[in-house]
Amino acid sequence: MRENEIVIKFPDGNEKNYIKGVSLEEIAHSISPSLKKKSVGGSVNGTLYDLTRSINENAEIELYDLHSSNGIEIMRHTTAHVLAQAIKRLYGNIHLGIGPIIENGFYYDFDLDNSITMNDLEKIEKEMNKIISENLEIKREEVSRDEAKKIFAYDPLKLELLEDIPSGDNITIYRQGEFVDLCRGSHLPATRFIKAFKLTHISGAYWRGNSDNKVLQRIYGVAFASQAELNEYFHFVEEAKRRDHRKLGNELELFMFSEEAPGMPFYLANGQIIRNELETFLRKLQFSSDYKEVRTPTMMNKQMWENSGHWDHYKENMYFSKVDEQNFALKPMNCPGHMLIFKDKLHSYRDLPIRMAEFGQVHRHEFSGALNGMLRVRTFCQDDAHIFVTPGQIEDEITSALKLIDYVYSIFGFKYEIELSTRPDDYMGDEALWDKAENALQTVLNKLNYEYKINEGDGAFYGPKIDIHIKDALKRSHQCATVQLDFQMPEKFDLTYIDEHNKKVRPVVIHRAVFGSLDRFLGILIEHFGGAFPLWLAPVQVKVIAVSNDVHKQYAEEITKQLKQEEIRVELDLRDEKLGYKIREAQLKKIPYIIVVGDNELHNQSVHVRKYGQESSEEVKLEEFLSNIKKSIQNKSLS
Amino acid sequence: MRENEIVIKFPDGNEKNYIKGVSLEEIAHSISPSLKKKSVGGSVNGTLYDLTRSINENAEIELYDLHSSNGIEIMRHTTAHVLAQAIKRLYGNIHLGIGPIIENGFYYDFDLDNSITMNDLEKIEKEMNKIISENLEIKREEVSRDEAKKIFAYDPLKLELLEDIPSGDNITIYRQGEFVDLCRGSHLPATRFIKAFKLTHISGAYWRGNSDNKVLQRIYGVAFASQAELNEYFHFVEEAKRRDHRKLGNELELFMFSEEAPGMPFYLANGQIIRNELETFLRKLQFSSDYKEVRTPTMMNKQMWENSGHWDHYKENMYFSKVDEQNFALKPMNCPGHMLIFKDKLHSYRDLPIRMAEFGQVHRHEFSGALNGMLRVRTFCQDDAHIFVTPGQIEDEITSALKLIDYVYSIFGFKYEIELSTRPDDYMGDEALWDKAENALQTVLNKLNYEYKINEGDGAFYGPKIDIHIKDALKRSHQCATVQLDFQMPEKFDLTYIDEHNKKVRPVVIHRAVFGSLDRFLGILIEHFGGAFPLWLAPVQVKVIAVSNDVHKQYAEEITKQLKQEEIRVELDLRDEKLGYKIREAQLKKIPYIIVVGDNELHNQSVHVRKYGQESSEEVKLEEFLSNIKKSIQNKSLS
Repeated sequence: MRENEIVIKFPDGNEKNYIKGVSLEEIAHSISPSLKKKSVGGSVNGTLYDLTRSINENAEIELYDLHSSNGIEIMRHTTAHVLAQAIKRLYGNIHLGIGPIIENGFYYDFDLDNSITMNDLEKIEKEMNKIISENLEIKREEVSRDEAKKIFAYDPLKLELLEDIPSGDNITIYRQGEFVDLCRGSHLPATRFIKAFKLTHISGAYWRGNSDNKVLQRIYGVAFASQAELNEYFHFVEEAKRRDHRKLGNELELFMFSEEAPGMPFYLANGQIIRNELETFLRKLQFSSDYKEVRTPTMMNKQMWENSGHWDHYKENMYFSKVDEQNFALKPMNCPGHMLIFKDKLHSYRDLPIRMAEFGQVHRHEFSGALNGMLRVRTFCQDDAHIFVTPGQIEDEITSALKLIDYVYSIFGFKYEIELSTRPDDYMGDEALWDKAENALQTVLNKLNYEYKINEGDGAFYGPKIDIHIKDALKRSHQCATVQLDFQMPEKFDLTYIDEHNKKVRPVVIHRAVFGSLDRFLGILIEHFGGAFPLWLAPVQVKVIAVSNDVHKQYAEEITKQLKQEEIRVELDLRDEKLGYKIREAQLKKIPYIIVVGDNELHNQSVHVRKYGQESSEEVKLEEFLSNIKKSIQNKSLS
Repeated sequence: MRENEIVIKFPDGNEKNYIKGVSLEEIAHSISPSLKKKSVGGSVNGTLYDLTRSINENAEIELYDLHSSNGIEIMRHTTAHVLAQAIKRLYGNIHLGIGPIIENGFYYDFDLDNSITMNDLEKIEKEMNKIISENLEIKREEVSRDEAKKIFAYDPLKLELLEDIPSGDNITIYRQGEFVDLCRGSHLPATRFIKAFKLTHISGAYWRGNSDNKVLQRIYGVAFASQAELNEYFHFVEEAKRRDHRKLGNELELFMFSEEAPGMPFYLANGQIIRNELETFLRKLQFSSDYKEVRTPTMMNKQMWENSGHWDHYKENMYFSKVDEQNFALKPMNCPGHMLIFKDKLHSYRDLPIRMAEFGQVHRHEFSGALNGMLRVRTFCQDDAHIFVTPGQIEDEITSALKLIDYVYSIFGFKYEIELSTRPDDYMGDEALWDKAENALQTVLNKLNYEYKINEGDGAFYGPKIDIHIKDALKRSHQCATVQLDFQMPEKFDLTYIDEHNKKVRPVVIHRAVFGSLDRFLGILIEHFGGAFPLWLAPVQVKVIAVSNDVHKQYAEEITKQLKQEEIRVELDLRDEKLGYKIREAQLKKIPYIIVVGDNELHNQSVHVRKYGQESSEEVKLEEFLSNIKKSIQNKSLS
């Protein structure tokens, strides 16, 4: 190796010599022109590097394109600079706050006299596009503190930021055309590398987040690797807004919240119907899987919560009360109650497994700022189960639990991902039992041919666990179901059973939840279905409308009565409104079936059926309609 | 009227003159010898009088026989004296505490050296019967305080009681044979009037209930107007003990209590099944009656409870907590939550009635001494509904509510009594509305041809009410259902709807509960059915037993599977125990149907059915059995 050469190591392990001072851009080009073309940045020994920056020592490098998270973040950062440059061009010598990247985009804070409104964003975007098409080269410079002070002498905000850079640290600035910013980088090589962006909104923000300071104007934007991705993002945002469960919860009268009990849902009639359906659905499945449903009190005394460990480890999330001058706490989990039930009776190995289930209302404190409709509440109903097993039964019971979860999720059309978390450093209990348990979980997942991700060391201290993350219709991920092994709870409550050799031994406990929180699951379902629930869940399943109340009322009433006798949730609209109005209103309520009856239908003993989401409608014999929807409800069909 | 005559007025209003000094016995005799014979005491101007006591002024009188509550109480009081006399005869000159009457009987407290045991009761009863057959005359004497002190000089306890008689009050003693007691009376004329008694148990009791004092020996007894009544009483006691819901709750594994949460039930699997059945039953009825089920939070803030009036009027029965440093309370009632839901939306008269129902878990404090299994708990589930109506809808809605209650109770075979409570002195609200409401309630009860008792002035201050008292199998009365009108809650929450004239007016609220408390209702059901629940409620409906596990196991398993698929709660007993043992055990668990399968049944594809409570068993085709029990479950048959 020559004296002026350095060794560059690539992510695939290959190494190659280059002249000292080489840049990532040159390295990329040395491999292929296309690699150079798509690279927007990189890292050198783990530090982000601009493409054009010199490398002066042996290094491991990585190159990023816009499809890597680092690459797109570099682009978003540069887009923020372009925004600042545009503002300066449009509004003169204003002062600049900070301009960081955020999820999907960036913002920049400005101190300027003009008040920027949403109407100005188009003009600003136009200027930004101009800067991009000018394809200004972006240059990094290391400067001394004194130089920096001179450069930013006109901007008190930047001078303040400069003060915060510890002495000894490099001070870097970035230039593009006439624009200069104090910035650690890294950035794109030139402005033309920005592919697609959009300014989204404006807000006020205190300088440095301190309410004693001046309010700056903040402009937000998003940026993506292509116009297609940008469009997809806005489609997603629109769709998420349209499906927002708080909005739909209000429009469809599913639930409400009140300042009298923040974070504690009030179920309105429509929401309660869905909740009851979910509960009944799982209850029936649990019946056929030999679960035993129990019910434990909302409050228990301090001694119990000390014994369970919650008093020491979970106190800040608990609510407290007093009974007969004794300290009590509202249950944040159902486990301890189930342990007390198990402990109340002698058990033989022949009794195991005992599958104890509860639809248990728990209370857990959340900061008011963290509350989010049904997705984060302070009280919710867990579909909790604790399965008491011998070590030899772990595998079978985990299998059954996973199959149950799979079946339940399939009913809603949820795909899901599985994560297996293994023993953490501070694990408690017997090592051999851990080995056995982890092996059992893996064996089960393998036997079921499930793909899963292993999170080494991420299990709870009391046992390994399997978490299930469902993907909703917008491909958002929600952790709902969980299957956890617990070796600690049986210790704490001194649980035993008599084994085959007439010896007292500890059972293992499997914690299992399918929905997780019924309340949160309802929130997810609302967004997943956009409020257009499958028939079996729909609060109102059929709306009946007469073409003329004068002529067809009686027939409409007969149909309604007949449907109701079949336990179908049906509503008859006899208001003095136009037919079209009634139909539109029922569609807005996303009612699965609208039945219209007029002369033809009366004559044919039929109904005219309009299915939600379908353009066309058709005349069907009443019995046929009835038999079809009964089948759909029975099968919990998705369409 | 002669100078030495007085006027005696009888309960029927008739008056008659007697010589001054006449006794109730003489008056009775003057009317008829049989009246004299059956009279055991009476009252003169409202004061209890011994039959032989002289009457010296004009008076209204009543005569009591043993079938009146005053008459039987006089007999019980005399029986206590006979007990004391017997103890003195048997144990010498001991000291006597007090000897009052209690429900069904009496007790007497004794200070004596001998320790009386249950084995001694027979001997004491024998002596009491001797005293009764001696037919000692019972004589009342008024004595001076000094005379009394002399008479009871030997007995420090009686002297202490003497001290407590205010100076100026009459001091009376009663003598029968050698026995004398300090006593206000009144008593039977002679010991032979005692018809039937039995000593029941013994306990210790502090003199005057003060734990600083000496412990006396207390002997309890019961006494009735005839031996038949006494026998009936013991039969009732035995039956009540056999049916005790706490005992059966434990034996049938329905529920448990824990010191970790006193008074707060833990539902075991079998109890939870019944609770779920009760809930599902009422939910379906409510669906067909157009109720809307909702669900409101367990806790709400102080401001809400102040507004509802609970903070001021119900505080001592409530549990409290803190959320975000604000005072919260656990709901003791569901009403306020329902008011908030009503208030959250604008309503037109066209929307009314709104029937809002909730299976709401409430918490109400009870003293630990008052707790009684499921019959008195600190948290329970109310099957609560609030019906928001226009004044014109009161009658119809009350009618529907009463019909619903009648239907539900008929399912359990409960007879019931109705009480109508009208406006109290401190009633609140508009008088005309009260008139209308009370009339409406009466009209409804009359139209339905219901018998009812009117409790004048016994209504709540917020409105009149109808209470329903069910009679269980032992003829004990339990107040469960209630239908109450409420004019106040709508005021407090400022509830309104828009009436036909486009004016904002107040709705009236009807509170309605059918079970009342599901937990208490379960307790009542357990005792009503003695744990032998009708098929639809039975936690295990069918027990399947193979004559030989070796030969008939597969067939038994097939049957079990088939029943389970039909959602029948079935258990298969494959233990290595004798057939007879298995059958007896299933009978002890009061399982409605025991199915035994052997060679015959396997060959005939039939089952051998043994119905709970029946001596005989019979072979039935499997389909026939299945169809029969499905019908019985469907119809909620009682047998």
